Amino acid sequence: MMPLKCVDVAIIGAGSAGLSAYQAAARFTDQIALIDACFSHKSNASHAYIPTKLLVAASEVATCITHHDRFGLQLDSQVHTQEVLSHIRQQNALVKTSWQQNLAEIPDTHKIQGQAHFADPHTLILTQANGHSQAIYAQRIVIATGAHLLWPASLAHLSQQQASKILDTHTLFDLPHLPKSLAIIGADTQALEIAQALQVLGVKVEVFTEKQQFGLLTDPWIRAQAQAYLQTKLTLHTQTKIHHVGYDAQENQVTIHYQTPNALQSTQVDYVLNLFAYQANLQHLALENAHIRLDDQGFPRFNQYTLQCISQDNSASHIFIIGDANQDRLHLHEALDEGCIAGENAGRYPKVQAGQRRCPLAIGFTQPSMAKIGLGYADLLERYRDEHKFALGQAQCTHLDARVHMMHLQVGWIRLYAEQGSGLFLGAELCTPRAEHLAHLLAWACQQRMSAQQMLAMPFYHPVLEETLRCALIDLNAQLKLGPVPDYTCMHL
Amino acid sequence: MMPLKCVDVAIIGAGSAGLSAYQAAARFTDQIALIDACFSHKSNASHAYIPTKLLVAASEVATCITHHDRFGLQLDSQVHTQEVLSHIRQQNALVKTSWQQNLAEIPDTHKIQGQAHFADPHTLILTQANGHSQAIYAQRIVIATGAHLLWPASLAHLSQQQASKILDTHTLFDLPHLPKSLAIIGADTQALEIAQALQVLGVKVEVFTEKQQFGLLTDPWIRAQAQAYLQTKLTLHTQTKIHHVGYDAQENQVTIHYQTPNALQSTQVDYVLNLFAYQANLQHLALENAHIRLDDQGFPRFNQYTLQCISQDNSASHIFIIGDANQDRLHLHEALDEGCIAGENAGRYPKVQAGQRRCPLAIGFTQPSMAKIGLGYADLLERYRDEHKFALGQAQCTHLDARVHMMHLQVGWIRLYAEQGSGLFLGAELCTPRAEHLAHLLAWACQQRMSAQQMLAMPFYHPVLEETLRCALIDLNAQLKLGPVPDYTCMHL
Repeated sequence: MMPLKCVDVAIIGAGSAGLSAYQAAARFTDQIALIDACFSHKSNASHAYIPTKLLVAASEVATCITHHDRFGLQLDSQVHTQEVLSHIRQQNALVKTSWQQNLAEIPDTHKIQGQAHFADPHTLILTQANGHSQAIYAQRIVIATGAHLLWPASLAHLSQQQASKILDTHTLFDLPHLPKSLAIIGADTQALEIAQALQVLGVKVEVFTEKQQFGLLTDPWIRAQAQAYLQTKLTLHTQTKIHHVGYDAQENQVTIHYQTPNALQSTQVDYVLNLFAYQANLQHLALENAHIRLDDQGFPRFNQYTLQCISQDNSASHIFIIGDANQDRLHLHEALDEGCIAGENAGRYPKVQAGQRRCPLAIGFTQPSMAKIGLGYADLLERYRDEHKFALGQAQCTHLDARVHMMHLQVGWIRLYAEQGSGLFLGAELCTPRAEHLAHLLAWACQQRMSAQQMLAMPFYHPVLEETLRCALIDLNAQLKLGPVPDYTCMHL
Repeated sequence: MMPLKCVDVAIIGAGSAGLSAYQAAARFTDQIALIDACFSHKSNASHAYIPTKLLVAASEVATCITHHDRFGLQLDSQVHTQEVLSHIRQQNALVKTSWQQNLAEIPDTHKIQGQAHFADPHTLILTQANGHSQAIYAQRIVIATGAHLLWPASLAHLSQQQASKILDTHTLFDLPHLPKSLAIIGADTQALEIAQALQVLGVKVEVFTEKQQFGLLTDPWIRAQAQAYLQTKLTLHTQTKIHHVGYDAQENQVTIHYQTPNALQSTQVDYVLNLFAYQANLQHLALENAHIRLDDQGFPRFNQYTLQCISQDNSASHIFIIGDANQDRLHLHEALDEGCIAGENAGRYPKVQAGQRRCPLAIGFTQPSMAKIGLGYADLLERYRDEHKFALGQAQCTHLDARVHMMHLQVGWIRLYAEQGSGLFLGAELCTPRAEHLAHLLAWACQQRMSAQQMLAMPFYHPVLEETLRCALIDLNAQLKLGPVPDYTCMHL
């Protein structure tokens, strides 16, 4: 008979979300199992972002060096980038993530290696690499299995040798040197970060996406401005379908045939980086045995405040789902919050509490950087159906802004959204220098439910980039037409 | 008889504060006189900061270039800085400040050139450059005369030719090339910005101040850390009295003899930049005829919410004082607010209103940058008399912060202050990279009277510098010992 272990809480997946859930649940019980197929940081998304951010940092410095003459400096040499990848590997090896530290502190008796699936709502079967199986009976179960990259159909037919020309975010950073040319399939934030950084560092980059959207921008005005600007730096093919990917053995290159509105075109590159799309890792879980409600695509329905799945009888389940596995808020800081909420709830079950969620905040470290705060343009259209039911205020980084001018950062666009009638600040999309900082200011204001007028009463120093934000707020306030208000503002520099 | 002009509002001084007051008052009356001795941007502090900030921008890029190898980049050449000053002159000439634009839009009939002084509380006598005089009878008067640099006693004896080696913030930027060496008398924020930027650009800089304080820092912990760090970059003589300044004709250099605790020492430099101290421009106003209360040093007492001076009978006067002339909040954004408040109040007098003041916010663009928000350490000591009556939370930029590590910004210190019992966030001092952005986040939180716990519930992305701020908030919250609270926080990266 299969050996059986009984626990209060079982957590499937030892990524960042799972570890956060473990730490929270372990404050309530010692009868706990943290289950993972490999316990390797290679499978942990929270580790994969580090080389990308190191690459971005190098590209920012390279941009700075290239623009030296804008600041009255002279340089007799161009910047050389051939050692960047080996430098990133060195730096990356030095980074001890808190994930690794936290995992090391967990007692071995709590860690169980194996691939888990549901036998019934309380029983998990674990299959080990050696083929042995083990059953775990758990009072409560947290699903934190993360997500994996999908392999697009256009790459499916490649032979194994040819497939070595197709990179992922691990193998990209294992290349001995920067390639001469690279095509990226997918245009999410990470794809754009890598694309732009590599282009700055001397790689010829082409980005392909079937969608209109790229990065995190959904506002059509900002997207049009940003796309026009990015096109001057790299080749961004939006709404473009890849027809066929072939291999040119003579040149040892990959040929990409793609469909434009007018013709079938092709391009040859050294490598392809696949960032097509991510999908939740639910395929091995046999969720049909968990007695929880699944949507059309087989994804569990869940409550985003308690993180409980919905049972088939519509009651709240003892099964929780968090992190990339629930495909809801795909950011590390949200995954940690979800782990904390679900872990506590699993620990004190059935006394479940709604956790406090934070104002949505997404940031892309491109040049200029991008951010989305609260409700973005697409969210607002979905909610209000009509652009006239919310107010828009906008601003552009121009020579007129003293700080922008001095730092030569004259590329950037801001759109702020507010509720008509109340003036409540609802959200924003930005593509500006240092969007990460402006985004925090806006996200804190949004979470505190400030109005545009309240935000204008806050301090703005001079000369700072935040003054461009104020221009957008002044515009937003004017669009709100809230009376009675004075028809002027104080003089601003 | 002297020609007499009657107006509703007279504004003395056409700097940024005066112009802001003019714009606000002009919405109430057309009978208005804007009086200035020269109407030149050279005398306007809001113009003088621009070359300094251009110099800082150049030094930031030079630092970035120097640190290229930290990011895996190679460069065969050092950066050359000999053209920086001429570049700054070019750029500075291009900057059309809103001050210049706004001044140009004012009708000539409202602008009156001359040096004003009070004959009685309502009568100003204007002396023109040609010696002619004019009298203005004004219902209300706004004093916006700005401030001027004091010439320290140690420089008083220099001959005119020798005095050409003593620079101010105008003549510094008129030098054909960067000097080899420079001594700066004074260590306020502007002095430190210039000192550090010039040092980065290759000038040997020594800074002298008689005070313990430098820049805007008053927190002893941050000051000690910052001073130790800055000393590795430039020579900062705090609590040092300059004994004598001489001129070495043979070397065409200035010799500075200064007193250290142990001995009298000396140093030779190409130039001296005088930033000793600023004093309000009240010396020509004959304030004794204005029937307002003056303090021991001859400065008017005033209400910082209405900006009205206090009359000798303790009633609120029809005379207002704003900007650097009142020596209260010495920042451009505050000067504009004061102009707006005083201008409106002068316009609708006697229906005077208290204006909304913003949370104090001061920023220094050094490397790392500095900021003070709300109540600084010295303000708190003055208010509470005792360090144990308020809570302190602190954090340091370390390798442990992912973003700090990736951008090689491991130099920085944060101190946050909160009220014991309530947890109300009171203020902060920072010396960190990008303090300008962290400072806005903190100043907005402070003005909204958030508590440390409320601030911790706000979103923090990963990896961002704001996470170092969160470390300080977690420490602050722990120091507050506010119960009942959980004894843990969610896992953070």
